[in-house]
Amino acid sequence: MRLVVVGAGGRMGRMLVRAVAQAEGCTLSGAIEREGADVLGQDAGTLAGLPPLGVPVTDDPLAAFAATDGVLDFTAPAATVFYAELAAQARIVHVVGTTGLSEEDLAALRAAAFHARIVRSGNMSLGVNLVAELVRRVAASLGEEFDIEIAEMHHRHKVDAPSGTALLLGEAAAAGRGVDLAEVRVSTRDGHTGPRRPGDIGFATLRGGSVVGDHSVVFAGPSERITISHHAEDRALFASGAVKAALWAHPKPPGLYTMTDVLGL
Amino acid sequence: MRLVVVGAGGRMGRMLVRAVAQAEGCTLSGAIEREGADVLGQDAGTLAGLPPLGVPVTDDPLAAFAATDGVLDFTAPAATVFYAELAAQARIVHVVGTTGLSEEDLAALRAAAFHARIVRSGNMSLGVNLVAELVRRVAASLGEEFDIEIAEMHHRHKVDAPSGTALLLGEAAAAGRGVDLAEVRVSTRDGHTGPRRPGDIGFATLRGGSVVGDHSVVFAGPSERITISHHAEDRALFASGAVKAALWAHPKPPGLYTMTDVLGL
Amino acid sequence: MRLVVVGAGGRMGRMLVRAVAQAEGCTLSGAIEREGADVLGQDAGTLAGLPPLGVPVTDDPLAAFAATDGVLDFTAPAATVFYAELAAQARIVHVVGTTGLSEEDLAALRAAAFHARIVRSGNMSLGVNLVAELVRRVAASLGEEFDIEIAEMHHRHKVDAPSGTALLLGEAAAAGRGVDLAEVRVSTRDGHTGPRRPGDIGFATLRGGSVVGDHSVVFAGPSERITISHHAEDRALFASGAVKAALWAHPKPPGLYTMTDVLGL
Amino acid sequence: MRLVVVGAGGRMGRMLVRAVAQAEGCTLSGAIEREGADVLGQDAGTLAGLPPLGVPVTDDPLAAFAATDGVLDFTAPAATVFYAELAAQARIVHVVGTTGLSEEDLAALRAAAFHARIVRSGNMSLGVNLVAELVRRVAASLGEEFDIEIAEMHHRHKVDAPSGTALLLGEAAAAGRGVDLAEVRVSTRDGHTGPRRPGDIGFATLRGGSVVGDHSVVFAGPSERITISHHAEDRALFASGAVKAALWAHPKPPGLYTMTDVLGL
Repeated sequence: MRLVVVGAGGRMGRMLVRAVAQAEGCTLSGAIEREGADVLGQDAGTLAGLPPLGVPVTDDPLAAFAATDGVLDFTAPAATVFYAELAAQARIVHVVGTTGLSEEDLAALRAAAFHARIVRSGNMSLGVNLVAELVRRVAASLGEEFDIEIAEMHHRHKVDAPSGTALLLGEAAAAGRGVDLAEVRVSTRDGHTGPRRPGDIGFATLRGGSVVGDHSVVFAGPSERITISHHAEDRALFASGAVKAALWAHPKPPGLYTMTDVLGL
Repeated sequence: MRLVVVGAGGRMGRMLVRAVAQAEGCTLSGAIEREGADVLGQDAGTLAGLPPLGVPVTDDPLAAFAATDGVLDFTAPAATVFYAELAAQARIVHVVGTTGLSEEDLAALRAAAFHARIVRSGNMSLGVNLVAELVRRVAASLGEEFDIEIAEMHHRHKVDAPSGTALLLGEAAAAGRGVDLAEVRVSTRDGHTGPRRPGDIGFATLRGGSVVGDHSVVFAGPSERITISHHAEDRALFASGAVKAALWAHPKPPGLYTMTDVLGL
Repeated sequence: MRLVVVGAGGRMGRMLVRAVAQAEGCTLSGAIEREGADVLGQDAGTLAGLPPLGVPVTDDPLAAFAATDGVLDFTAPAATVFYAELAAQARIVHVVGTTGLSEEDLAALRAAAFHARIVRSGNMSLGVNLVAELVRRVAASLGEEFDIEIAEMHHRHKVDAPSGTALLLGEAAAAGRGVDLAEVRVSTRDGHTGPRRPGDIGFATLRGGSVVGDHSVVFAGPSERITISHHAEDRALFASGAVKAALWAHPKPPGLYTMTDVLGL
Repeated sequence: MRLVVVGAGGRMGRMLVRAVAQAEGCTLSGAIEREGADVLGQDAGTLAGLPPLGVPVTDDPLAAFAATDGVLDFTAPAATVFYAELAAQARIVHVVGTTGLSEEDLAALRAAAFHARIVRSGNMSLGVNLVAELVRRVAASLGEEFDIEIAEMHHRHKVDAPSGTALLLGEAAAAGRGVDLAEVRVSTRDGHTGPRRPGDIGFATLRGGSVVGDHSVVFAGPSERITISHHAEDRALFASGAVKAALWAHPKPPGLYTMTDVLGL
């Protein structure tokens, strides 16, 4: 499968280039950066710390999309909407790991998905998506005598809390219970809190060091606890998840898919 | 629901008495020990560290089974087979937490289950049975690029390794993968082991202190790990699981059930 | 060593009675409750779920203190100050696990300690006090490129956050670094927090189920993490810590001691 | 500080080159490979996935050692002994992360240390060495009612068990207790083991995925557990530990040092 990486000069873009180069059955057919980027013309492999791949970075997505089977995209909302339209015209696969999409952006993706095969997820790791599915099931099968708590740890540079993935897991737990996360979410505890309110879903946030991303969902019941955890060792994980999604979507009809579909859960 | 505890003078029997006394909708209708036991005639509640319950320990199961709705049994294989026959005659519920049953013992339970409602499990905790079900599903959905490892810790007095529950979780993982645990089980690693064989399921055993029972199943893949853990805080957990099983089985038709049925997984 | 339990009818008092009855070299010589308590006259052993110990609960501490070597006290501040004075008169050991003592109360204990041997700690478990000592040392030897985070989990009924023990560990970390905890403490993170401020000590609080008390201190540095954890399995732990403190203090000169002294750290 | 990397073309050598390039106050002054290596002549920076550093890989350690302040060496025993002699002649720092050194090799290092400043450790991470020191102290202060267990997990390619680092931690625990690890080491448990023997130190080994290295030492006592864990996120950690050791040893007199010295424990 031929794949184009957009945003190929960025940190995540370079990881995507490495993931494509290392994946069986994939070749890098293009590498895109925005006009004026100082990496234009450089070899995408060299940029990614690999031997040269013979693929220069260009600012011409139209040409690249015309000669590929799929696009890997962890850029920004406006760029992603633009690339989705191009992917629809080219009737190719568009894997979207971009976060922070608005409702309007999502509507644009849904429109593009009439012609493109789009896979979108807030976390492209297979593991996290599998964990979310487990959390949903467990929350559905356990009653309120089991309290749900979600703990996460990320590196010291992360600027928001709880993490998007922790919220994704919280949504899964709330869906399993048939409640609205906003109604039961408790993100801070400090001082005299009183006893835990039945049905609440708590979040605890740790920050420090260079932690890529650890998440644990605890179901704490009478005299026992079930904990489902995900530990990401390397950001490369999110890149290889994107490649796997592209390979999965290649033979599929147009549509808007999630990593849950890719996993077959 | 009226319940009889057999083996009421033992450590687990006393816990079962406490669990029945504390469960909503349950009353203790009998407490059985073997002939000659020195607790015969004592009040089952007092024995269990509770106020008296007005239920003396007797060695007459026949009378007790005739005037109850169910029996809780964590005794030994021979006794359990005998009690299953009585439960079948009385057409009541028989909850079996006894371990070490032979194939022949199990055949006797199956026969009794034509008339009794029998719930049997190697671990009566709801959490462990739920974890086993999750492990089966995850093992089925992840390929062999995810290695499966099972770690457990129990108190210093435990005499066997891996724990029965660890093996139950290993069976669940093997079932999910469609393999036979005996073919892939690795229980020891010491010295020059060579690299891990693809498809193996490894067991690691820790012993120490007063740990009631901790189990973790790790799915270790490329750059990420999913861990599903169960932590038992108190042996009382196994007693309250038995009571819950009895309540669940009460309105069911005769048959041999497991905790997976009780949980509705 | 003869020991008296004050507050013998309460939850913690009963645990102390059990701990004394089970400790080698200790005998229960008295059990005290406040005037009018409905357990007065009952056997302290029976109350604690043990066979009778021949020690009735009384409301006469004076007589009990005159015929004992030490007192175990997890009551309330006012009672503890009163008992400390009696212990000073009797020149015996007074083990204080009472929390919430004011500066004035502490001054009264210091005065009593001219004649009594008083051991006081916010957490009587040997493990937590050892962990605090380790945390202080590690914090002192690692620079600010290691971020310190403290996570704790307690049962759903706990009404304050972070736990007193988490704060004790935070104080130890701050002391190791030579900073004031109040200046660097971060107890909540929610929404756009910005990157972690160097030198901060973060607290994350989980609540749920019946967890007795789990604490972890994480030192997260560049590409590695050290975690020091304490897991309490049973509240009985705090009772046996108190007995150990009494045995330790028995041959000591009068003074105000902590569990750190008992441990010999 | 000028530093030379030996074995600069290997996986660990490239990491060392990156660590030097990124460390404040360090410059790469040479990169050595064995005669005939196919990377000879290439730029060490490019090889390491960095921009060119202007330092070609050569097979001439003599010249390189004459114009540097220190050498970083994670090669093999024979090469390390050879480099130690050159380092002694040049009176520079020699940081040795090489494993598998024989008693004879160690004698050669001791001889070289009359003139060179040698820092050697089986694990160059600061964290692991700190953990070992904590384990020694805790083992010394807790009695045999606390059982010591060591669990470790490494990637699926690791060929020996327990890991060298697990053994290093076991040695630290045994030293703390004043016993010989060989006498108390239990590395396998399978089948009917009988109860845990007092004083034993147990090892549990997990293998799977791409785990860089996790180690936990558990002290399991009556109703409580202390766990001291180390989690390595990235092999780069071992490289940066080596650089830190070099900087520390630079102003020191000749001698054979360990990471414990570097940490100041």
